[in-house]
Amino acid sequence: MDRLLYGVAYYDEYMPYERLQQDIEMMKAAGINVVRIAESTWSTYEPQKGVFNFSSVDRVLDAMHEAGIRVIVGTPTYAVPAWLVKEYPDVLAETPRGRGKYGPRQIMDITHPAYLYYGERIIRKLLERVKDHPAVIGYQTDNETKHYHTAGPNVQLQFVKYLREKFGSLDEINRRFGLDYWSNRVDSWEDFPSVIGTINGSLGAEFAKFQRKLVTDFLAWQVGIVNEYKRPDQFVTQNFDFEWRGYSYGVQPDVDHFEAARPFDVVAVDIYHPSQDQLTGAEISFCGDMARSMAGGGNYLVMETQAQGFPQWVPYPGQLRLQAFSHLASGAKMVSYWHWHSIHNSFETYWKGLLSHDFQPNRVYREAQTIGRDFERLSDRLADLKITNRVAMLVSNESLTALDWFPIPGGKIKYNDIVRRMYDALYKMNVGVDFIHPGSEDLERYKLIVVPALYAAPDELLHRLNAYAAGGGHVVYTFKSGFADECLKVRTSVQPGIIGEACGIGYSLFVEPNGVALKGEPFGVGRDGHGIESWMELIQPTTAEVLAYYDHPYWGGYAAITRNRYGEGVAYYIGCMAGEAVMAGLLEQAVKEAGLWGKDQELRFPLIVKSGVNRHGRVIRYVLNYSGEAATVDYPHADAVELLSGRTVRTGERVTAEPWGVLILEEQGKD
Amino acid sequence: MDRLLYGVAYYDEYMPYERLQQDIEMMKAAGINVVRIAESTWSTYEPQKGVFNFSSVDRVLDAMHEAGIRVIVGTPTYAVPAWLVKEYPDVLAETPRGRGKYGPRQIMDITHPAYLYYGERIIRKLLERVKDHPAVIGYQTDNETKHYHTAGPNVQLQFVKYLREKFGSLDEINRRFGLDYWSNRVDSWEDFPSVIGTINGSLGAEFAKFQRKLVTDFLAWQVGIVNEYKRPDQFVTQNFDFEWRGYSYGVQPDVDHFEAARPFDVVAVDIYHPSQDQLTGAEISFCGDMARSMAGGGNYLVMETQAQGFPQWVPYPGQLRLQAFSHLASGAKMVSYWHWHSIHNSFETYWKGLLSHDFQPNRVYREAQTIGRDFERLSDRLADLKITNRVAMLVSNESLTALDWFPIPGGKIKYNDIVRRMYDALYKMNVGVDFIHPGSEDLERYKLIVVPALYAAPDELLHRLNAYAAGGGHVVYTFKSGFADECLKVRTSVQPGIIGEACGIGYSLFVEPNGVALKGEPFGVGRDGHGIESWMELIQPTTAEVLAYYDHPYWGGYAAITRNRYGEGVAYYIGCMAGEAVMAGLLEQAVKEAGLWGKDQELRFPLIVKSGVNRHGRVIRYVLNYSGEAATVDYPHADAVELLSGRTVRTGERVTAEPWGVLILEEQGKD
Amino acid sequence: MDRLLYGVAYYDEYMPYERLQQDIEMMKAAGINVVRIAESTWSTYEPQKGVFNFSSVDRVLDAMHEAGIRVIVGTPTYAVPAWLVKEYPDVLAETPRGRGKYGPRQIMDITHPAYLYYGERIIRKLLERVKDHPAVIGYQTDNETKHYHTAGPNVQLQFVKYLREKFGSLDEINRRFGLDYWSNRVDSWEDFPSVIGTINGSLGAEFAKFQRKLVTDFLAWQVGIVNEYKRPDQFVTQNFDFEWRGYSYGVQPDVDHFEAARPFDVVAVDIYHPSQDQLTGAEISFCGDMARSMAGGGNYLVMETQAQGFPQWVPYPGQLRLQAFSHLASGAKMVSYWHWHSIHNSFETYWKGLLSHDFQPNRVYREAQTIGRDFERLSDRLADLKITNRVAMLVSNESLTALDWFPIPGGKIKYNDIVRRMYDALYKMNVGVDFIHPGSEDLERYKLIVVPALYAAPDELLHRLNAYAAGGGHVVYTFKSGFADECLKVRTSVQPGIIGEACGIGYSLFVEPNGVALKGEPFGVGRDGHGIESWMELIQPTTAEVLAYYDHPYWGGYAAITRNRYGEGVAYYIGCMAGEAVMAGLLEQAVKEAGLWGKDQELRFPLIVKSGVNRHGRVIRYVLNYSGEAATVDYPHADAVELLSGRTVRTGERVTAEPWGVLILEEQGKD
Repeated sequence: MDRLLYGVAYYDEYMPYERLQQDIEMMKAAGINVVRIAESTWSTYEPQKGVFNFSSVDRVLDAMHEAGIRVIVGTPTYAVPAWLVKEYPDVLAETPRGRGKYGPRQIMDITHPAYLYYGERIIRKLLERVKDHPAVIGYQTDNETKHYHTAGPNVQLQFVKYLREKFGSLDEINRRFGLDYWSNRVDSWEDFPSVIGTINGSLGAEFAKFQRKLVTDFLAWQVGIVNEYKRPDQFVTQNFDFEWRGYSYGVQPDVDHFEAARPFDVVAVDIYHPSQDQLTGAEISFCGDMARSMAGGGNYLVMETQAQGFPQWVPYPGQLRLQAFSHLASGAKMVSYWHWHSIHNSFETYWKGLLSHDFQPNRVYREAQTIGRDFERLSDRLADLKITNRVAMLVSNESLTALDWFPIPGGKIKYNDIVRRMYDALYKMNVGVDFIHPGSEDLERYKLIVVPALYAAPDELLHRLNAYAAGGGHVVYTFKSGFADECLKVRTSVQPGIIGEACGIGYSLFVEPNGVALKGEPFGVGRDGHGIESWMELIQPTTAEVLAYYDHPYWGGYAAITRNRYGEGVAYYIGCMAGEAVMAGLLEQAVKEAGLWGKDQELRFPLIVKSGVNRHGRVIRYVLNYSGEAATVDYPHADAVELLSGRTVRTGERVTAEPWGVLILEEQGKD
Repeated sequence: MDRLLYGVAYYDEYMPYERLQQDIEMMKAAGINVVRIAESTWSTYEPQKGVFNFSSVDRVLDAMHEAGIRVIVGTPTYAVPAWLVKEYPDVLAETPRGRGKYGPRQIMDITHPAYLYYGERIIRKLLERVKDHPAVIGYQTDNETKHYHTAGPNVQLQFVKYLREKFGSLDEINRRFGLDYWSNRVDSWEDFPSVIGTINGSLGAEFAKFQRKLVTDFLAWQVGIVNEYKRPDQFVTQNFDFEWRGYSYGVQPDVDHFEAARPFDVVAVDIYHPSQDQLTGAEISFCGDMARSMAGGGNYLVMETQAQGFPQWVPYPGQLRLQAFSHLASGAKMVSYWHWHSIHNSFETYWKGLLSHDFQPNRVYREAQTIGRDFERLSDRLADLKITNRVAMLVSNESLTALDWFPIPGGKIKYNDIVRRMYDALYKMNVGVDFIHPGSEDLERYKLIVVPALYAAPDELLHRLNAYAAGGGHVVYTFKSGFADECLKVRTSVQPGIIGEACGIGYSLFVEPNGVALKGEPFGVGRDGHGIESWMELIQPTTAEVLAYYDHPYWGGYAAITRNRYGEGVAYYIGCMAGEAVMAGLLEQAVKEAGLWGKDQELRFPLIVKSGVNRHGRVIRYVLNYSGEAATVDYPHADAVELLSGRTVRTGERVTAEPWGVLILEEQGKD
Repeated sequence: MDRLLYGVAYYDEYMPYERLQQDIEMMKAAGINVVRIAESTWSTYEPQKGVFNFSSVDRVLDAMHEAGIRVIVGTPTYAVPAWLVKEYPDVLAETPRGRGKYGPRQIMDITHPAYLYYGERIIRKLLERVKDHPAVIGYQTDNETKHYHTAGPNVQLQFVKYLREKFGSLDEINRRFGLDYWSNRVDSWEDFPSVIGTINGSLGAEFAKFQRKLVTDFLAWQVGIVNEYKRPDQFVTQNFDFEWRGYSYGVQPDVDHFEAARPFDVVAVDIYHPSQDQLTGAEISFCGDMARSMAGGGNYLVMETQAQGFPQWVPYPGQLRLQAFSHLASGAKMVSYWHWHSIHNSFETYWKGLLSHDFQPNRVYREAQTIGRDFERLSDRLADLKITNRVAMLVSNESLTALDWFPIPGGKIKYNDIVRRMYDALYKMNVGVDFIHPGSEDLERYKLIVVPALYAAPDELLHRLNAYAAGGGHVVYTFKSGFADECLKVRTSVQPGIIGEACGIGYSLFVEPNGVALKGEPFGVGRDGHGIESWMELIQPTTAEVLAYYDHPYWGGYAAITRNRYGEGVAYYIGCMAGEAVMAGLLEQAVKEAGLWGKDQELRFPLIVKSGVNRHGRVIRYVLNYSGEAATVDYPHADAVELLSGRTVRTGERVTAEPWGVLILEEQGKD
């Protein structure tokens, strides 16, 4: 792992005919230096209970090793064999929609002892087989693990025990969850109903948290097994994924990423995103920032990303390169495609790989060859990029779940939409972001913390945020923040509760906007950008300055956006779902006020600039042109070498980024 | 009950901290003189089977009594405790979608003996506890009771016995329901299939009627129990609700309101409605007219209506007052908000009360204070309003169900849409309406009966309507009326069957309009208003005069709307779903022809005028301005005192109703 | 069957009162000379197990015979009695959505022995009763038979045995279906999971094929029984239907029509279609061509078509006639309405018959009278029309199913949409079409074969199509053709695989068009017609000529539509979902190139011309005006007699077709 990795997922098991040597030759021609194998094909390795056949693993390891290609071995537990389900049908998770049916992956009860018993056995058998192989550099446990909504009677039983452990008594639960409502009290543990039907958001959200804990526990259990086998030079990782909206969109609802990532040596993620005319790089940046943050600021692996992907994703010329370097620019040390070849049968036949079903070199493959060459050539300058940000975004699984239980009217705006509204605005003004979570310490590392819809949060966190502001920090909150405690109980104080102090505001009423805009044209957004959506809080400032009022015949006296000096710091509050332009204008003001506005921020999307420091202590600056038009920049930093071309670029010199093009500038100086 | 009641639903059980005295002080400051308690919280009163705890009831009763606030006690049976369901899982209704899951309210089989046994016990325990308390003025049985689609095997068994009792033989059922169709005959009682899967509308509609009877029986059973306890000065009521489309919209499909209301001393309803720019008062009037009609013309209670309600309902300044007096104008003697405080947990957290979660006086609460003061001050003039209407609308649960089974093409227009198309037109021209039903006698009390889509009706009723017309009554029918008998068997005569005689028309064909309008511009509606929707009957007049033809290249020779003199009366027939303007024009003609057009009808929405006679024999006339613009009226009636201001208003004097404002004029004269 | 039949479905069992003689008189007045009876009413004939009552059959047969009306008797097995389901609940099919519920027709497991046992008994009892009756001319087995998605454990068991029989070994199945994917391998027959949950398209499609075989087997079993009874002068038929989209739309997904039709003496179909302004005749032609092709080119019965049908179908004046003669023009020898009278109860109350519920002569009935008279008068000239086409369309159930498993992005375009896009273009240019299927021999009978989306096909078929082209045939393929084998395994060669040779093209990449059009305006379609939808293959010609390129900044170098000379023939390939105008332009070119363009093709929709040869060896030419405007034609063929008017028409003479009118021209000459 001393160098940049460029990889693919490789499935010898799915090949329609013998191709191994041919494939390896094509890989080498494309600079592929790592493959991931084995994570999907339990039934091939154990075709009958206790009958093992690792021949496809053996031969791939040997051949890869011979070719100098490294291998990451996945444990094959995320898709269960037919024989296991036939013998133990309740291995399939019972969810709110009933018991699953055999066929798809990721349908099992991850707490079921038959699954765990046979899962452990196949893991151990596989690891015994591969652990000493020189090709193996690491392991992936399972794949895109989630809880699959397992909620059957056995899971309910575990949940009740979890509740007792956590809350101590039914009285406490009844009180904190408000179970008197609609006669939902439970006054004897035996009476605890399955929460599948519950209408109590506090209970439902606690169950979701419990389900996320099942994922954390399951992964830690697998890591424990792998750790018994792995060599010191090997790592163990997991391929985390994100909220899926046809592509990687936002915070993963079903996993507590920060908790689940702890036991791993390295964080890996998969990142899929719109392409062609819809390619913006925002998902590459968002997911990369999340992975890097999960890794405590370290580098991460992009275990899966698209090569051709879906018909609507086949990259335009230049895009595959742009994507690959964008991953590096966010701190990735591996970029690996899912997958090498397009599969000829079953569910993902149209989720295409680097090669089409015909295995012929194609336009996309040929572009990959250039990437492989450049990764190889520039590995020493680009690997181990150290990225340090002064802006953080505080995200919260609890708030995400809470807003699923208490949705914003209209159903259009969910938690991750608010996250992305803020994130994308920062991304487009080239402000680098770390993610933090309710348990994060050291808030003071950041000059500015942006906080989307922190709906459900303990008092402690909110007091800590107030203290952060008082101590000189800058905070930007959106609507819905501070509203409820960690049990989703709405605070009994004037809203937004505790943070109202730092924000210098209060409100008792909130309404749904219907064609409402902000008065005037705040932040110079013009007539097109000042409309608001879905939610408006009728804010009354106490000490805050009003940055925008609502334009409404009856609610025009209430504030929409406020700013408040608090101690040494500043707290902003956005009381409505503002449009992109308003969000951008406000965040620009906040970034400037926090003293974080520099020359790169003067550039804007589609020109994305990202920077860090390489292993040689030099600043590496990526200029990424997310556009089909060439773009010119008057380079504002210290003299640098543009690494792809090898050309020196002087301060103030005009440089051109080609359509969908990349420049990589290494500042010169001490080495 | 000698005075106007102004109330809230109050839940001590849901309070996040001790508030009782504070709440009572705030209630008194707002003129709240009645609270409803206890209808939702069985599990609080009986936390374990046979363990009772009425402490929250006791303390609320005592404190309210001390403060002079009256209490209505609800029986807590509409939400079942967890322990009951754990012990008897089949207490949860089995519906066409399967057995319910524990969590929501209103999910039980209201015929299940375990539910009835424990339900009766908690009712008796509660009533024993409260019946002698001086604060208690009455009882509410259950809440918004319906049948919850209970349709499990036990219910099917009861239904078969009901069928045998009603129809006598399977031959009769096979014949009347047409069960030969698609081999659906039943020739042995044991073979009777569950009707959950039936495609026979006659059978399905009979089952729906049976289910409505379950509601009637259940409520009568509760009333019987309550009557054993209630004092002579106490009443028993039920909180009926309406077809729900996000608000109270129309005739309740799942309850036969007229039948179910019989055993109660007083009728109560809940009324929720759009607000802000969508506030029209139409639902307040519709539901109020229905409640008054269910009460045989007497006054009724608005047991629940919104204070803040949903974010989209938070009233504009003046609207809460306008709403409160509108209820009185339709004959209410109580206006009670759901609910006092906004609940901090669970399902209805965002269904807000008079207070927000912060319990602070807010803009809405302060407006309520003015209402409370005015109710108190004017109670003697406004209570016991006697309203007498000469127009009735005949509504039919059977026809509603029938049109669910045999829907109007396109799916947009359902029974209640036709009801509301007619009702709203009358409302907007200030024509007061009573509701009558297929069993109503004394049709002759009315000069005009409007009949929306009376699809399923026995011969007897139709002959009675013909006789009413022949005797001088005026009738307006819409399309689909008279089409089928009470078993939904289509009549074998030329349509519209029996009423075709009074209407002087016949038709054999009907088609779906596609961009069709009425020829010419009938009733002066102009080019925008003459389009029709969803349904058109190709009517051929026999003796009728044609008021409108279809504008169509092939169907242009058929009549769309007709008028026929029949004996001493007149019958109109509308063969298509006409637009609002056409409906208004036609009804205006019918009202005028019936001699019911007066000065108040010259005013139009948004100026609503409603009147009645108070306990002093004087005419009370409400002028309600459903608009954000002030409106002036040249007062056309006898000299009056405007009660809110105390100002005298002379005949012909110009008076002004403020935006969303109210005038209450009491005609002077004998006292 | 020596003469044209004009019929109705007649249900004495559904009559609300005694009508038989009255109905027969009205039928005779309308020229009705055949009725179909008995196919829906098992429970009437066997009201209890083993109790039979055929009195309604007896009396109808006697009365019809006396009136000279022929009778087709249906076996009543497509709707099961309540007693059967009560005794054997699992007679109801278990489908992917669970066990069915009693009520609808067509809900049984057609493999269940209880159903088969009692089904056979009622068939035999009925046939014994009617077989010697002189009124009976034939039998219909069951009705619109399909597999009803039966997929319960017993069906799964049969399927596993079918797989073993067909593929021999699990290894073969694992390999051909690609079951290694996601751990789906099966390595022991006992482990075979229910395929209800499968995500493997190969397995799923094989199951669909197996389900279609169940239909074939079931119908053959019924024919076997009927054949034991039928007289030499009697026939046995089945009423096949089509993919249903609110009307008969395309290839039936759930039945292999060509296989299932084999055992029958004559093919019957039902054809329902939009009417009024949406009447185009396309469905009459499409379904008729399919029925004639299923019958090996012979004549067929339209067992059901609409008289009034739905409100949106009530025909305009002239349309019922136009429809009736259009059926004859495609080769029908019977036109029969569903149904005589409109039913007064249950599910199809609003699917109206020739008569309305009032049984009165109405406008539609009166138009039927003219049809009946003309059928009677012209039977000798119009019966036994022999139609010979030189263009065939190759349709494939396997490809239809495959595109359900691997849908075209966007979900708008399904297999039958591509079929209809091609078919309708040919229909509108008056090119007669036969349907062929993957098993069809004698491709050389045709000059031109059009091939929509032949996604799943064995090598053998594709080689045969190449040979057809090489031998001088003309072929037009659309996108997706040739892509996968008969197990839906994608070919490993450059696409479109085998047919790429005849087409002279190859492609590796495909994308989704987003606002993409064809470059230039190919086929003179203008700016409105050159857009494409849903799918585009990036085609590189090897030997082909490019007829159209994509208009796209990045994909503009790839071909969209190509033409290739191959041996003696020509192969076209359309790489995208082209619009109607482009499809029409391309097909016009292909038809012309195949030498099939004549005078009738110069006419266009709404003027439809169809022709054949009658029993006297003379050309019969129907001119059908699918428009509300009269149309004139300069008659271009040999002198003829217009049969409806009896007028002679000379070559070149101008003739007029009335709005929605028909001309029937019999060329004069030898008799």
